[in-house]
Amino acid sequence: MLTMQDALLALTRYWTEQGCMVVQPMNTEVGAGTLNPATALRVLGPEPWRVAYVEPSVRPDDSRYGDNPNRLQTHTQFQVILKPEPGDPQELYLGSLRALGIDIDRHDVRFVEDNWASPALGAWGLGWEVWLDGLEITQFTYFQQAGGMTLDPVSVEITYGMERIIMALQGVDHFKDIAYAPGISYGEAFGQAEYEMSRYYLDDADVTAQRGLFEAYAAEADRLVEARLPVPAHTYVLKCSQAFNVLDSRGAISTTERAQAFARMRRLAHSVAKLWVERRAELGYPLGGVDVPPAGAVAARSPQAGTDQTLAFEIGVEELPPAETTRAADAVRQALTEKLSATRLRHGSVTVMSSPRRIVALVEDIAPREDDDEQTVRGPRLSAAYDADGAPTRAAQGFARGQGIDVAELAPLSAGGGEYVGYVKHVPGRPAGEVLATILPEIVTGLRAEKNMRWRSPGLSYSRPIRWITALLGAEVVPFTVADLASGRSSRVHRTAAEPVITLSTATGYVETLRRHAIEPDAAVRRDDIVAQAARLAASAGGRVDFEAESALVDEVTNLVEAPVAILGTFDEKYLELPAAILTTVMKKHQRYFPVLDGDGRLLNRFVTIANGECDHDAVRAGNGAVLRARYEDAGFFWRNDLATPLAEMKERLARLTFETRLGSVAERADRVDAIAADLAARVRLGGDDAETLRRAGRLAKFDLGSELVIELSSLAGVMAREYARQAGEPDAVAEALYEMELPRQAGDALPRSRPGALLALADRFDLLAGLFAIGSEPTGSSDPFGLRRAALGVINILRAHPGLEGLTLREALAIAASHQPVPTDAHLPGQVLDFVRRRFEQLMLEQGHPAANIRAVAGLVDSPVRAERTLDHLAALSRTPDFQELEAAVQRVRRIIPAGATPGYDPALFDSPAEEALATALEKAHAGLRGEGDLRRFAAEAAVVVHPVTVFFDEVLVMADDPAVRANRLGLLAAVHDLAAGYLDWKELS
Amino acid sequence: MLTMQDALLALTRYWTEQGCMVVQPMNTEVGAGTLNPATALRVLGPEPWRVAYVEPSVRPDDSRYGDNPNRLQTHTQFQVILKPEPGDPQELYLGSLRALGIDIDRHDVRFVEDNWASPALGAWGLGWEVWLDGLEITQFTYFQQAGGMTLDPVSVEITYGMERIIMALQGVDHFKDIAYAPGISYGEAFGQAEYEMSRYYLDDADVTAQRGLFEAYAAEADRLVEARLPVPAHTYVLKCSQAFNVLDSRGAISTTERAQAFARMRRLAHSVAKLWVERRAELGYPLGGVDVPPAGAVAARSPQAGTDQTLAFEIGVEELPPAETTRAADAVRQALTEKLSATRLRHGSVTVMSSPRRIVALVEDIAPREDDDEQTVRGPRLSAAYDADGAPTRAAQGFARGQGIDVAELAPLSAGGGEYVGYVKHVPGRPAGEVLATILPEIVTGLRAEKNMRWRSPGLSYSRPIRWITALLGAEVVPFTVADLASGRSSRVHRTAAEPVITLSTATGYVETLRRHAIEPDAAVRRDDIVAQAARLAASAGGRVDFEAESALVDEVTNLVEAPVAILGTFDEKYLELPAAILTTVMKKHQRYFPVLDGDGRLLNRFVTIANGECDHDAVRAGNGAVLRARYEDAGFFWRNDLATPLAEMKERLARLTFETRLGSVAERADRVDAIAADLAARVRLGGDDAETLRRAGRLAKFDLGSELVIELSSLAGVMAREYARQAGEPDAVAEALYEMELPRQAGDALPRSRPGALLALADRFDLLAGLFAIGSEPTGSSDPFGLRRAALGVINILRAHPGLEGLTLREALAIAASHQPVPTDAHLPGQVLDFVRRRFEQLMLEQGHPAANIRAVAGLVDSPVRAERTLDHLAALSRTPDFQELEAAVQRVRRIIPAGATPGYDPALFDSPAEEALATALEKAHAGLRGEGDLRRFAAEAAVVVHPVTVFFDEVLVMADDPAVRANRLGLLAAVHDLAAGYLDWKELS
Repeated sequence: MLTMQDALLALTRYWTEQGCMVVQPMNTEVGAGTLNPATALRVLGPEPWRVAYVEPSVRPDDSRYGDNPNRLQTHTQFQVILKPEPGDPQELYLGSLRALGIDIDRHDVRFVEDNWASPALGAWGLGWEVWLDGLEITQFTYFQQAGGMTLDPVSVEITYGMERIIMALQGVDHFKDIAYAPGISYGEAFGQAEYEMSRYYLDDADVTAQRGLFEAYAAEADRLVEARLPVPAHTYVLKCSQAFNVLDSRGAISTTERAQAFARMRRLAHSVAKLWVERRAELGYPLGGVDVPPAGAVAARSPQAGTDQTLAFEIGVEELPPAETTRAADAVRQALTEKLSATRLRHGSVTVMSSPRRIVALVEDIAPREDDDEQTVRGPRLSAAYDADGAPTRAAQGFARGQGIDVAELAPLSAGGGEYVGYVKHVPGRPAGEVLATILPEIVTGLRAEKNMRWRSPGLSYSRPIRWITALLGAEVVPFTVADLASGRSSRVHRTAAEPVITLSTATGYVETLRRHAIEPDAAVRRDDIVAQAARLAASAGGRVDFEAESALVDEVTNLVEAPVAILGTFDEKYLELPAAILTTVMKKHQRYFPVLDGDGRLLNRFVTIANGECDHDAVRAGNGAVLRARYEDAGFFWRNDLATPLAEMKERLARLTFETRLGSVAERADRVDAIAADLAARVRLGGDDAETLRRAGRLAKFDLGSELVIELSSLAGVMAREYARQAGEPDAVAEALYEMELPRQAGDALPRSRPGALLALADRFDLLAGLFAIGSEPTGSSDPFGLRRAALGVINILRAHPGLEGLTLREALAIAASHQPVPTDAHLPGQVLDFVRRRFEQLMLEQGHPAANIRAVAGLVDSPVRAERTLDHLAALSRTPDFQELEAAVQRVRRIIPAGATPGYDPALFDSPAEEALATALEKAHAGLRGEGDLRRFAAEAAVVVHPVTVFFDEVLVMADDPAVRANRLGLLAAVHDLAAGYLDWKELS
Repeated sequence: MLTMQDALLALTRYWTEQGCMVVQPMNTEVGAGTLNPATALRVLGPEPWRVAYVEPSVRPDDSRYGDNPNRLQTHTQFQVILKPEPGDPQELYLGSLRALGIDIDRHDVRFVEDNWASPALGAWGLGWEVWLDGLEITQFTYFQQAGGMTLDPVSVEITYGMERIIMALQGVDHFKDIAYAPGISYGEAFGQAEYEMSRYYLDDADVTAQRGLFEAYAAEADRLVEARLPVPAHTYVLKCSQAFNVLDSRGAISTTERAQAFARMRRLAHSVAKLWVERRAELGYPLGGVDVPPAGAVAARSPQAGTDQTLAFEIGVEELPPAETTRAADAVRQALTEKLSATRLRHGSVTVMSSPRRIVALVEDIAPREDDDEQTVRGPRLSAAYDADGAPTRAAQGFARGQGIDVAELAPLSAGGGEYVGYVKHVPGRPAGEVLATILPEIVTGLRAEKNMRWRSPGLSYSRPIRWITALLGAEVVPFTVADLASGRSSRVHRTAAEPVITLSTATGYVETLRRHAIEPDAAVRRDDIVAQAARLAASAGGRVDFEAESALVDEVTNLVEAPVAILGTFDEKYLELPAAILTTVMKKHQRYFPVLDGDGRLLNRFVTIANGECDHDAVRAGNGAVLRARYEDAGFFWRNDLATPLAEMKERLARLTFETRLGSVAERADRVDAIAADLAARVRLGGDDAETLRRAGRLAKFDLGSELVIELSSLAGVMAREYARQAGEPDAVAEALYEMELPRQAGDALPRSRPGALLALADRFDLLAGLFAIGSEPTGSSDPFGLRRAALGVINILRAHPGLEGLTLREALAIAASHQPVPTDAHLPGQVLDFVRRRFEQLMLEQGHPAANIRAVAGLVDSPVRAERTLDHLAALSRTPDFQELEAAVQRVRRIIPAGATPGYDPALFDSPAEEALATALEKAHAGLRGEGDLRRFAAEAAVVVHPVTVFFDEVLVMADDPAVRANRLGLLAAVHDLAAGYLDWKELS
């Protein structure tokens, strides 16, 4: 059996063989190997660096007295840094798993999107969790920034979580049972330390002392930055961080302190990084510089074809995030189509497919060359082209010479009403290969994702590194280079395949070739395959998968694999005692497993996981099952702890959770939501049991964010509130309201049913919107960390679901929410938020198929989204009726004639025609019918009486009378007509 | 080339193969691997433990900005703990050198006595430095105590100094040039950190902050001990220690602080250790217990010999300290002789020899058996043995039965004046083998050294582990067991020999057999060999070794090897620019090399080292040369730094050196010496240039203890003072006085020549004696850490060398010294010290051959040792003259008759005999002649006049007259005679 120490040695040996230097763990406590200067500082600057080391990583918050099977206050990381990234870090990494004795051919190893960011360190990177049979064993990150500085070259960080790897390899359920060394278990060796350090971190550390240490360390770090000594300064930043973590695990960090401490540490980390880079420059970069990878080299000759050919174009990438996989296919399809259509190259159908590791474009029937073309080239004016003798002037001769033609070839031509000389130029089409060699690299360099990274290829920036480009026109390579990549005829299949790189002889049958190597590039095919396999396995266990409910998960899984292989797993029935929401959340969110239900929709102790390619099903099943068990153990631990905790105590913990620096703790936010909901309830005159329910639920609002389970599985917020409230004996209505206040959690989610739930949910979102706008943190670009767009949509949808709350205007509600914020808000705030909500509303209505003009016409009504939508519905219905068409025509006619600022109103004494009288009478009748109320439908009905009088009016009356008083009176009459209509729609948007 | 990281991996691999667990370095700064809890705590208690780990060891004091080639603020230790010690740890260790690729057959690997003690940790152990070609590469220690607790089982600690090992293996001169990893040097990887951390430790650490940290850490450790959490408590003790070290390297630790800090850390370390042991017991010793090694097993049958045989008896040990090697031979010789003589076993000559690894005893011509014996056994009284009828009583019968004889065999016998019955018992002699099997194990268990240790063998305690016992009587094994060892017929030779264990067929030719395996057990032979080889090599280089001066070194080296192989080495001539004292000190004290002198006694750039057994001379020469170069580089570095430092600045540094907690810093002591010397000078009316010299030298006293060179090479104290004072332009006399004040440094050393030097030297020693006695720290047993015995002898010898200072009495001088102490001294102090000095004086005089009685007779004069010795000399001379013999007889006769407390004095009026008159007259004449002055010789001359009158007095006068007044007068007269003699000798000691 591979002991833990064997494993550490094996990894050390393997990585030294890959040219890594070995250094020692940091000799002060660190939370992760990343903080060791061998990473934190060395990734900065231009010097190359390859290092591997063990790092005992101290996380006071993870202290569990050694009781929890999977959680330790100190766990062991094995850390590798490759700088610059070597071009094949995934392959190197897989080699390290082999070095650990893992037969990766038998197992399901996957790279699952997981990006890393530490705003506190000014650091981020893109990469993956690496899964071994569903178990996260490694973090794999391309560092993009550290210490607030952009990294060039980019480093790869590989961080192995040793305890969990070893637990999996040894098949043990508790870290204490790990065979650490021959004859010594982890528990025997470190059990006492685990217990005692947990005691220290959770119970016994002296808070005052630690506060003092934090201050002393920070001051020392400051001084050392001042003294330009980044190495000791970094050490003190680490000590700061540890002191902070200890305080935190002792529950001693208030919101204000947390914010201040983070700001201080961030500032220090940035200063240290900057200083390190400066110092290395001063030292002349002792480790030298990094060579830029040479540009890819290809044969210069483009293929020459005699007949129509197929193009097969593949962009090979490291595992894309699932959402990017879909987006990439769309982007390439669009770019390829557009770019081809900008040429004169005839071609057949364009097909683009994608998988996590490739985007494949196929273009059929590409002509050998572009069509030839003729262009008329205009020369000098005819009058200037020939002299009196009809001989070509110097101008004509110059033009002909410039064009490379004989002056005799010039002929007269007309253009833009003038007469010129010119000629018709024959433009021959380029060979297809040449055209494609121009287009295809532009497509590669043009690839962009939501989040983009750099890697070794200079100038490229994409979601994940692009590692190969295949471009075949028929049997020939379309030759081009992009950065260090050259197009070619090879592709890559499964990394564990006997032949991971394949060579293609021709573009024809490209997809079939991939399929022969067990790669399915077509997402639709993969999706169908997943559904079919999973359904079959579920049925074999007497159950089914609710694919409708799991549609998003199916989509995601479709883009996690290139060769779906469904495997049915089981878990111990005892876990079915936990709430189903917990079980399915763990399965779906964490593991991307499909839950299996029985005929009544109840969970079975089964799951379906989708492996990537063939593997040893028993091994993969066992591995995935073990992961689930570990996670359920964890969840059960939290669940039992939570059940033993009074709700009030959980609620108190919210004071320790920061919501936002300026907006206070989560506890303060929960109190605001309570208060705002109470004000809204008063506004809608909520009474009876609902009022009591709201009062109680408001007091408990968000308490479950203080539960251990929700801290661990945040998506269960609300669900656990309901669960725990019930278990604590709260009334059902209160429990339900606590659940509903979190709804909707995402697009398409359920909405609150009860009014107390709805009011709490609204209060929650109004608080969010008012607060974040008040501090100027409205979303920008794609960044919406607090989910304000979702909140705005939520408001709209809740109100849509609760017609009874229609009377509540957004402006009012936002004013209430603003009044409860702990920061100053100005009078414009409700309006600003309203604009923001309006854009969401417009988007929503567009998605529902309303014409844009109609939407714009009702957008002004969004203060009550329900009313706005109803108006939109009426508009849609009415627009099809001749009566309304006439009415609208009348309103538009009126609207167009009256000047801006015309005042409604008229003096019947100034009328001098029956048409005026008739219009005034009709107007009064309509007014009487509407009494200033009603919706668009009623307006259409009541206002119909003015249609004819308006027509007559315009036929018989000269609005612009000579007498200014009469003229004003007539405009006032028309303005009154317009005024009648104005509140229902923004009519000009319909015109 | 083996890179540093390869070496760490190779060691890790090797030790895991020996069953060691691998742990990580401590994640807080530690000064040595010993402090890592994997050693500091795990060596405590009964649980077994085998561990290996790397430990970056932080020594702020060793910071050199990366400039010094051999000294780093963080160096790398590789640490191994074997608990219990496995019985063959040296062999295991040698295996690890082979694992590093060191061909130990070619090199000179030696185990050189080096004991380890950390009073601050309540820890000590015995062991060695391991030398590779003269380079200390490893510390090897059998831990005996830790945290104030006796260790059972005993652990072996092996600590490799990695940088120096690698420098030697790679042949580089500066740590920065070490190839750390392929393509990366140590300097490239860690140079910046070395510089910056040096800056921090030496210049930039904030003293106030570090003081605060120290307090915070200590308080936290206290609390954690209270909370019974030894693991986190230990961590905080380590943090304490680091904070202290930082303060120390910043020069911020005052004497008082140092003492307090050490006391605090010691107390904490003890508490933690105690608590750890308790906690492990509470946890039921998760790692189990250690099996006691089984007792050795031997054949029970003793050899039966028919003829006289030779005994060869060898006790095999791990390398003994040189002094113990000699002592062991003496002890075994004495024990064997005594024990044999207590038997009736006839035998021939007893020869005992010793080497570092064995004590060999040979006894010739041992008779096959003990002689038979007859013993008279006494029974009941004759009167009780037979009844009236002459028949044996029950008493007689019972006695006979008890003795196993027939009652008829009883016969009468006389004893102690009584009549008994009894019989003569024939006691047959035991076979020789049986006798020896009783004696020899007693010799083994009886072995004791100055410092003794325990190891795995239960019940044994000696200087170093005993690993084998050879006992052959002729061709047969003398069978016995001692602890886990059994006697046998095998011995061990060089560990690197092809056949390291040899089997002997017979005792005859034992020594020759050893010699055939290149082991020379006879120290005298080894010594002659060393001298011969070294002399030859020195001559070959045109020089010579001053063996007379190096006699002690020859003795030491003789006991460092079993097979002396002299090798001539060289060093760069440029180092000859350093003072010769530095060069020779390094050679002799540190390296045990013999310096080579030219015809004028000037140092050549040559040395002779004595390797242990055959080796690759070039490799060993190169290795030893490199070590010397490194040490000279270091010394040169210090030397140059010192030369650049004003004397006053060095002197100021003394404030940072603690002398003794209660007696203050070295600076305070130096000031006291200055003041005491001034008082002494006043007492002896020192004037003129001498007074000026003393004033100036006193002000500078001991400044060189603040020089870097003396801090490094403390034996150069005084020598460097002279050197630096001269270089700084001080007058020669001052420089000389500063040197002389340290004389004599050991027995037989030179003495101060100048009076200022002598006065300073005396003041130094009086201060030492007065101070240490004042605080009750006089030497006990063999412990004399402050060298008070040496100081007392020094006082005596200095005074002997300076007759001009004879007028200075010790009592006066000590009173002066006492008056300058910073602690209270009582009036008895001078007397107590005087007693102490008297014992040294007596010892010295005994060594000089004076009869003990004479010495005792003059001991009372030791207040002036010179006078006491002169008296002794006179006594020796006078004793041989009849006149003095008569005088003495007279004095003794007087002394014996006068009662204790008789008052001298008489009233001539009460005389009633001429004898009284005559005696009184003679007495007056003698008094007049002596005038209360003079020495014993003059006394003998002047007092001769009383001899005859005394004789007459006793013949003619009845001292005990009836008249009490007359009686008293006569006793008073005799008392006056006695009084005349009393001051010259303690006459009763002569009787």
